[in-house]
Amino acid sequence: MNPDIMKERQNATFNVEKLTNILDGGPEKTKRRREIESLVFSDPDFHEEDPNFLSRSERYDQAVRKSAQMILKLREYGIADPEEIYCYKKMAQGNHHEAMGLHFAMFLPTLHNQCDPQQSRKWLPLAESFQVIGTYAQTEMGHGTHLRGLETTATYDPATQEFVLNSPTVSSIKWWPGGLGKTSNHAIVLAQLYTQGNGHGLHAFIVPIRDMSTHEPLPGIVVGDIGPKFGFNEVDNGFLKLDNVRIPRENMLMKYAKVEPDGTYVKPPSSKLTYGTMVFIRSLIVGESASALAKSCTIAIRYSSVRHQSEIRPGEPEPQILDYQTQQYKLFPLLATAYAFTFVGQYMKQTYNRISGDINEGDFSELPELHALSAGLKAFTTWETNSGIEVCRMSCGGHGYSRSSALPDIYVEFTPTCTYEGENTVMMLQTARYLVKSYRQAKAGQQLSGIVSYLNEAEHQRVQPQPVAARPTVVNINDLASLVEVYKLRAAILVELAAKSIQQELQRRKSQEDAWNNSAIDLVRASDAHCHYVVVKLFTEKLGEISDTAIHSVLSTLALLYALHGITNHSGDFLQDGLLSVPQVLQVSVRIKELLSQLRPNAVALVDAFDTHDKKLNSVLGRYDGNVYEHMFEWARSSPLNSTEVHESFHKYLKPLRSKL
Amino acid sequence: MNPDIMKERQNATFNVEKLTNILDGGPEKTKRRREIESLVFSDPDFHEEDPNFLSRSERYDQAVRKSAQMILKLREYGIADPEEIYCYKKMAQGNHHEAMGLHFAMFLPTLHNQCDPQQSRKWLPLAESFQVIGTYAQTEMGHGTHLRGLETTATYDPATQEFVLNSPTVSSIKWWPGGLGKTSNHAIVLAQLYTQGNGHGLHAFIVPIRDMSTHEPLPGIVVGDIGPKFGFNEVDNGFLKLDNVRIPRENMLMKYAKVEPDGTYVKPPSSKLTYGTMVFIRSLIVGESASALAKSCTIAIRYSSVRHQSEIRPGEPEPQILDYQTQQYKLFPLLATAYAFTFVGQYMKQTYNRISGDINEGDFSELPELHALSAGLKAFTTWETNSGIEVCRMSCGGHGYSRSSALPDIYVEFTPTCTYEGENTVMMLQTARYLVKSYRQAKAGQQLSGIVSYLNEAEHQRVQPQPVAARPTVVNINDLASLVEVYKLRAAILVELAAKSIQQELQRRKSQEDAWNNSAIDLVRASDAHCHYVVVKLFTEKLGEISDTAIHSVLSTLALLYALHGITNHSGDFLQDGLLSVPQVLQVSVRIKELLSQLRPNAVALVDAFDTHDKKLNSVLGRYDGNVYEHMFEWARSSPLNSTEVHESFHKYLKPLRSKL
Repeated sequence: MNPDIMKERQNATFNVEKLTNILDGGPEKTKRRREIESLVFSDPDFHEEDPNFLSRSERYDQAVRKSAQMILKLREYGIADPEEIYCYKKMAQGNHHEAMGLHFAMFLPTLHNQCDPQQSRKWLPLAESFQVIGTYAQTEMGHGTHLRGLETTATYDPATQEFVLNSPTVSSIKWWPGGLGKTSNHAIVLAQLYTQGNGHGLHAFIVPIRDMSTHEPLPGIVVGDIGPKFGFNEVDNGFLKLDNVRIPRENMLMKYAKVEPDGTYVKPPSSKLTYGTMVFIRSLIVGESASALAKSCTIAIRYSSVRHQSEIRPGEPEPQILDYQTQQYKLFPLLATAYAFTFVGQYMKQTYNRISGDINEGDFSELPELHALSAGLKAFTTWETNSGIEVCRMSCGGHGYSRSSALPDIYVEFTPTCTYEGENTVMMLQTARYLVKSYRQAKAGQQLSGIVSYLNEAEHQRVQPQPVAARPTVVNINDLASLVEVYKLRAAILVELAAKSIQQELQRRKSQEDAWNNSAIDLVRASDAHCHYVVVKLFTEKLGEISDTAIHSVLSTLALLYALHGITNHSGDFLQDGLLSVPQVLQVSVRIKELLSQLRPNAVALVDAFDTHDKKLNSVLGRYDGNVYEHMFEWARSSPLNSTEVHESFHKYLKPLRSKL
Repeated sequence: MNPDIMKERQNATFNVEKLTNILDGGPEKTKRRREIESLVFSDPDFHEEDPNFLSRSERYDQAVRKSAQMILKLREYGIADPEEIYCYKKMAQGNHHEAMGLHFAMFLPTLHNQCDPQQSRKWLPLAESFQVIGTYAQTEMGHGTHLRGLETTATYDPATQEFVLNSPTVSSIKWWPGGLGKTSNHAIVLAQLYTQGNGHGLHAFIVPIRDMSTHEPLPGIVVGDIGPKFGFNEVDNGFLKLDNVRIPRENMLMKYAKVEPDGTYVKPPSSKLTYGTMVFIRSLIVGESASALAKSCTIAIRYSSVRHQSEIRPGEPEPQILDYQTQQYKLFPLLATAYAFTFVGQYMKQTYNRISGDINEGDFSELPELHALSAGLKAFTTWETNSGIEVCRMSCGGHGYSRSSALPDIYVEFTPTCTYEGENTVMMLQTARYLVKSYRQAKAGQQLSGIVSYLNEAEHQRVQPQPVAARPTVVNINDLASLVEVYKLRAAILVELAAKSIQQELQRRKSQEDAWNNSAIDLVRASDAHCHYVVVKLFTEKLGEISDTAIHSVLSTLALLYALHGITNHSGDFLQDGLLSVPQVLQVSVRIKELLSQLRPNAVALVDAFDTHDKKLNSVLGRYDGNVYEHMFEWARSSPLNSTEVHESFHKYLKPLRSKL
């Protein structure tokens, strides 16, 4: 163990294991998680080459091998609980993704949810025995967010009782689905349904794309990998071009909508049913944000405790870089954010579980709020995390740029969350739509419930988007409850500002739609402030659940830092709205510096509490033992360009060059 | 040509070619640049595979081939002007780097600057004929920014008249130098010189590392590639471990300091002499920022003009995504930034050239200011560009994540500029040191000259870091001169705030050094505000040189957007300091929306004016003709995972899996 990092651990003021238990949801959960993780890291079958040393094709190969292995091992161990499977897979995948991820995440659940009983009997056994490996083909080259714009067609031919599927244009080629390129032999294809001369919008069809025994593409199918990406090298995101591909009528998923043999279309009873899955996945992404940021902070903070550089006092030894105020200012607010997002992720999961119970009983009342919240928080947390990972990486100096740090991998694997499952700006605007609607309801005197109820209060208080000299500033910048209030008022004011912008545009005789588009900047800002309020609030509320004094104390410091750092970064909003005075904003800056010093002795312990196993972190900089340099050297020496002392390019180009000059 | 992008070009209000000429520095420069570029793209020897389709080793191989080729071709064409060479190489390299870059950028210049006449006669012909290929080995695994911390030793042995070089620890292993791993047979090694029992600090030594004919590492040398990185896959950044490596006394670079045969050390006459190179490289990086951001904006804006998505008005066709206010708000401020940085880059180059003339005549008076300015602007522009590239990438939706967009490549190749040639936070603090020193001089009544002279005025005006209700707000948010003033005052106030923070820390009996560290957040903020002021000022001044009315008009709009967007993003500073009133900050938001609409018709023309050749951009999304989807499909189909229809992993893992279940 590196002596610096050992000393850091000795200086911590709280019990790390107890905090880990809180993060896991109880000591027994920690125990079980570690049991499952040890099944992976003690398993020689999971020893593998660093994927960064492999070619794309080798990486894909290794990932498919691992997918197959995991299927067998999970059955062998009898692990069937979704959370435990998730934990096992996360450990096995480290910073990378599963080649067959979409088979489990989308193909199987869609079969479960949208097959009629007869279809279930046919397809589920095939998919569960991996005779059929599937993916979910929704997005097209020219169409992402806007589903109605999809161009793929499925036209019913009653003569043969088949659907004929086509990609009528280049932009209609299915593009991006994971596992589509090489792995899957079936795809659930979203296509515009036409029957009896009428269009009925998007429906889902099971389309065989490769021969089940030879794996060769079937006639009419052009399928392949979409080529190298920023990350996701393990995954064969694919394209699919359909040219008069015929599938039997029974391959349309018919639990809800149907096409009768004669071509008669039968409408689905409700359209809300697929709503829940989206909400679920977006809630999961909030947790993914927390986890990616926690990993990044673990690497950067541990490394900053063993890295010595430059000087603070001349003549003294080089200090740990964690002693620099600028380094603390980069990392500790992100550490606070990682904790905040962890608790928000827990909240979202609990809320989702509670509400899905209601949904199963036909009660959809809370779904719109959760939908709006999950959309905004997905965007808010992924954006923050996305830039936060890069701050962590760059805070490691040059070595953060090496793949051995794992930070490049964490970034490229995480960054698509800003785009997929609902592009972030679109998400923010969805939340804004809910906020503006709620604002108008509040203004019309309706009593709101749930998290937007503050819009009633705001209305009551007649908050103005200008500093009200008369309003006494009662904010206590050291009191979290008071800060939650001030974040709430900021959100209320910005929602009002956005709503008024729309109003003004309408008064200039703009259409409703143009007024919306011309207020979009304000709307995104309002959503952002709303989400920020929710995060500060949930972090603060979480503190109420924590009985251990030492842990309560350090988490309170983190929560305070989180709240005050947000105020500094958006001080214009708080000043502009008269929520804080100029001297208070200056005090906030001073207070932040004090909090940084206060957190300094607990920084390493706080990342230790995330308890990310070295094998999962896979970072020479973030090693638990702090022995960075020896392992960096070892890693470098084993990298492929060092397999020979002299690279062939010397003989091919450099030596001949001399004679040509 | 895609009809949408054609229409965009027809709608432009200015002559694109004339603006290109302004960016190039005159029509004849544009002409010559295009001539040189055409030498590359019309040359079949430069046709190559997309590096993204190759393994690391193949990429390195291709890059070495290209390096050798460029050497021969440049001699063949007789291109010898450094700027023309730069232009030729940039075109040949596209978004990637040169394998032998450090031979040209550091090894040769160091020989030129630090060899005594005898050494020059020996080494220059060898290096210029590529018998000797060299690199510059400064950083060590445990030591980057802080040169005095370097551990490599060179101990003089008078008995044999040799230096003995050693890497005494793991952390002392030379790490990161480009071309060190595989390409170079010599390195200029920076090491702590010991002779006659005394240490004399860092000196440079020419160390042979590989046999000149077999290219095998020499005895005592452990050399290799440091392994895969985020980017820079073409470059063999290397490590070098020295174990009692003996080199003749004559291999110490002895133009300035010397070691006599008996071991007597002779001090160099001045220490300022290597100062200039750093300033030069940092100034160049400002230009690199402009170019990386210009490329990214070109891709994102062209793609946004051909991409249709979602709906603004129901029932109407999907609009170009450039019509969304949120998309404009992401991209147009970055476009303005790209122009701003281009002009700042031009200014830095001119100033450097002017001042180096003075330096050659022994006049160092302007060097400290240029040094401070280049440090801060290097940090300011690279940070802004770094996040800006990612905003551009994510504004392209999913396709920005594909390597075919080129945006991942642009990002990973650019992002090290935030770290190398002076880590950005350290750079900001260097500038801050100059600002605080100047502030104290001003306060002591000294008349400052140059760009910091505003600190005199501020002192004169007794600006306080609190809103001065009495000070009449005379800022006109539509007048650039007025905005330059307000940025200047903000900088002055933040410099004062930082200086006062140091003062307060000193009063708490902190040492000078601790006071500095405890004020580092404020110091970075002050530098940032100073650089921001300089950029707004230089952009505004550039407008004065532009006579074409239409171009003047569109660039003025860009400059105004740049200035107002900065105010919105830092509105807290402007409000806190009482520089702007709350109603003015609200007006700024409204005005920004108007400017976005105003720029909309010129957006494509403004990126066209950067005149980045398709071959150099290498982006399917950023193609000049806008024919995005066809080429994305073509690119994907030619990617390596599609070289066979069935990947071997099917036979190896997926088929066998079925029988095991």
